Amino acid sequence: MSAADESDALLENLIAKEILPQSGNWEGTEEFLNRIVQVLLKYIKDQNDRDQKILEFHHPDKMQMLIDLSIPEKPENLLKLVKSCEDVLRLGVRTGHPRFFNQISCGLDLVSMAGEWLTATANTNMFTYEIAPVFILMEKSVMTRMWEAVGWDPEKADGIFAPGGAIANLYAMNAARHQLWPRSKHLGMKDIPTLCCFTSEDSHYSIKSASAVLGIGADYCFNIPTDKNGKMIPEALEAKIIECKKEGLTPFFACCTAGSTVYGAFDPLERVANICERHKLWFHVDAAWGGGMLLSPEHRYKLAGIERANSVTWNPHKLMGALLQCSACLFRQDGLLFQCNQMSADYLFQQDKPYDVSFDTGDKAIQCGRHNDVFKLWLMWKSKGMEGYRQQINKLMDLSNYFTRRIKETEGFELIIENVSWPEFLNICFWYVPAKIRNLEPAEMRARLEKIAPKIKAGMMQRGTTMVGYQPDKQRPNFFRMIISNQAITREDLDFLIKEIVDIGESLE
Amino acid sequence: MSAADESDALLENLIAKEILPQSGNWEGTEEFLNRIVQVLLKYIKDQNDRDQKILEFHHPDKMQMLIDLSIPEKPENLLKLVKSCEDVLRLGVRTGHPRFFNQISCGLDLVSMAGEWLTATANTNMFTYEIAPVFILMEKSVMTRMWEAVGWDPEKADGIFAPGGAIANLYAMNAARHQLWPRSKHLGMKDIPTLCCFTSEDSHYSIKSASAVLGIGADYCFNIPTDKNGKMIPEALEAKIIECKKEGLTPFFACCTAGSTVYGAFDPLERVANICERHKLWFHVDAAWGGGMLLSPEHRYKLAGIERANSVTWNPHKLMGALLQCSACLFRQDGLLFQCNQMSADYLFQQDKPYDVSFDTGDKAIQCGRHNDVFKLWLMWKSKGMEGYRQQINKLMDLSNYFTRRIKETEGFELIIENVSWPEFLNICFWYVPAKIRNLEPAEMRARLEKIAPKIKAGMMQRGTTMVGYQPDKQRPNFFRMIISNQAITREDLDFLIKEIVDIGESLE
Repeated sequence: MSAADESDALLENLIAKEILPQSGNWEGTEEFLNRIVQVLLKYIKDQNDRDQKILEFHHPDKMQMLIDLSIPEKPENLLKLVKSCEDVLRLGVRTGHPRFFNQISCGLDLVSMAGEWLTATANTNMFTYEIAPVFILMEKSVMTRMWEAVGWDPEKADGIFAPGGAIANLYAMNAARHQLWPRSKHLGMKDIPTLCCFTSEDSHYSIKSASAVLGIGADYCFNIPTDKNGKMIPEALEAKIIECKKEGLTPFFACCTAGSTVYGAFDPLERVANICERHKLWFHVDAAWGGGMLLSPEHRYKLAGIERANSVTWNPHKLMGALLQCSACLFRQDGLLFQCNQMSADYLFQQDKPYDVSFDTGDKAIQCGRHNDVFKLWLMWKSKGMEGYRQQINKLMDLSNYFTRRIKETEGFELIIENVSWPEFLNICFWYVPAKIRNLEPAEMRARLEKIAPKIKAGMMQRGTTMVGYQPDKQRPNFFRMIISNQAITREDLDFLIKEIVDIGESLE
Repeated sequence: MSAADESDALLENLIAKEILPQSGNWEGTEEFLNRIVQVLLKYIKDQNDRDQKILEFHHPDKMQMLIDLSIPEKPENLLKLVKSCEDVLRLGVRTGHPRFFNQISCGLDLVSMAGEWLTATANTNMFTYEIAPVFILMEKSVMTRMWEAVGWDPEKADGIFAPGGAIANLYAMNAARHQLWPRSKHLGMKDIPTLCCFTSEDSHYSIKSASAVLGIGADYCFNIPTDKNGKMIPEALEAKIIECKKEGLTPFFACCTAGSTVYGAFDPLERVANICERHKLWFHVDAAWGGGMLLSPEHRYKLAGIERANSVTWNPHKLMGALLQCSACLFRQDGLLFQCNQMSADYLFQQDKPYDVSFDTGDKAIQCGRHNDVFKLWLMWKSKGMEGYRQQINKLMDLSNYFTRRIKETEGFELIIENVSWPEFLNICFWYVPAKIRNLEPAEMRARLEKIAPKIKAGMMQRGTTMVGYQPDKQRPNFFRMIISNQAITREDLDFLIKEIVDIGESLE
């Protein structure tokens, strides 16, 4: 028998309870894990091969016939599990492929991935120093770098890693409410004034969602208009605050977006900070996407004023490229998170431990158990250093400039936002207008354009060669939103996308 | 040079940007990842060796001197990263060690771990079928098994994987509010009646926390007394509901705990369901810990009535042994999650896609990006089958019986809850009373006992041999809470713990 056949035979005759931890069979354990690693390494290699497809698209009903997703009555043997892993990866979408431009979180940083493998193996919970001593200290160390990047005094700042930016934004709004009306924690919203908050119409929907969840109400989260570049108009914000006050509402929270989801716009932080100070509002910056720009001295100015924020959401799983999920909610002032969220669960967070319990973080979280999201970030950050991030982010901005230039000079492409200093960030929004509709009347062109991007996208998915997102906005028909955040991207990949869009676009009926 | 030296030399001369995905150096990439895997395999092997310690305890200030947690200016080479991984694991707590009894989530299932490694490598987000086709269908398949286990019609049920039980409970309470007062989503809590909810005094603090976060107020979440076995007293619940109504409050939500955190008690679900029906309350079951018992036909009766719940929290990362985090919030009725949480983010969840968009889950979640928590559960469940879980859970209950018997017959140990049918679950709470204080007056004994468990625990951590949690309750001084959830546990491990407690307890000053 060949070595491969021997391995197959070994695993085919084993089930899970016959390896560690239920049995002492180390040979079987090692062989199983090594085979899984081989599957993963092959996937990684293929994913980085530009000649390989990003996906094989199948509709849900077909997909269900290609893989057995059912939970069986009897255990499946280890060989079958290895094969299942191969199938799952084969039928999935290679989100780390250098030509997958579909999401803000793209790419697969292999050091961060190695970190996540270790996190899985260590499998610990982040609530106490007792069970996660190194990781708890690591959170503090990593956050210190983040606080410094924001421009805060690390001795006074606070923060928590949250499961995604939406929950991070919810943490911020909850803390803001608590600071203003601490009694609401105990007595709810009934006896306090009617609160309201503000965010730009181009901000992430999680701000409105937080307002709904917290019992403030989605309709009391007001959308402030943006200018033609997608930036919040400060005058409109102040006018709305004044109007709300006149109507008897109590404005308490304003959110600026630093790197908006669709356009990648940065709201004018300094001017909004002035307004928040004038009207005594909590100033939150949702830098989930744009926070990484703080690590580039060349581009940091786009977030000038962020140090005046009371809270900042910053997702290292976006621009910094950490694996999903890695999201931080940072606070300028220490103490509030604890006051706001602690529920005196003495049975979990005892005070009579043999070490300094101020290191226990459980009582600061809305979550009880909390996944270790810091290790994959820490290891990756060590692997790049401050210098490496600076280079990486500047390189991505260079690519963004290159792509914008290519879009401008290629026939049929039209930028959504265009001015001298554009692109400001790594989102590039554009239409492709196929030759045959270029000379239509505006109304008809608009109607036709609405259907072009979805058709081109469907063509990409059928071919499996590349993926890029699209959406309409309040005034424009469907357009593409290109995101350049994968560190693997080259100019050739950008040229490829343009060529592919033209090719599919011109072949449409 | 030896092979090991060659490997070291190769990695010492490489930094992250010189391997995939930024560079095409496959040899370096493979070597780095293989070295990481070697570190992890060694850790797994050692962790399962009972002669190895669970931890080397160091106070925070000392720990900070043993490992360099800082983020550097320059990149660190790949060899240094491998060494860092070794250090982090060496200084951490081996939560998968068969003698770590400290948390409800214990043990390291290696199939689930392999699943989490793959999840990291696939690194995708769960919001749409477009980017996570297999995993989205897998969620449905796994949830179908969970809905069936609860006793619901899978055609009508709904659910979502949440980052931990606390957020799952928050999902449930939010949906309950929405069903009763859908306008609160838009208009907040100001114009609706004063809501109140109920949970037992031994329930998890996240129920109260959800009430605070949602703007209902922690004080409007009433604690219902429990009987001597830690179970909610239904008569007390109904009396409190009636009292609240008289005071002009609007009761809307009652939570039963199935497997309480400290005592492992199961509330009387049928009787509470009757009360909820009578008073038209949403009936939630927090089975975060106890949900796994549904998979044992022999023990399922302890959750009889769960099929009458409107929502159920069930954490496969607890009794089922999935890696952290894996938590489901299940709903009997489809549709509500979507109504409650969707924010019409057309720019993310487009309707004009080339496939059936009802498979997209993004709009049901409070989170936007959502980690893939299903794969590690699915692969593990395949590896055991329904049959394997039945055996595993029954085996743990046998061990729980064994341990209880040993505690009863060993001098100096005293059970907190004791009756004929005990233990009901996998928590065993007890004191150890050292010989020298056994004959003290009750008041003095109590005062001394308060300090015994912390001292014994500190002794265990110094020795590094075992770990078990302790806490006081409202009427009792500190006692140990033993948890038998790690599938690796044997009777010898339980005997070891008893011997260790006696040994440390008798050596105390």
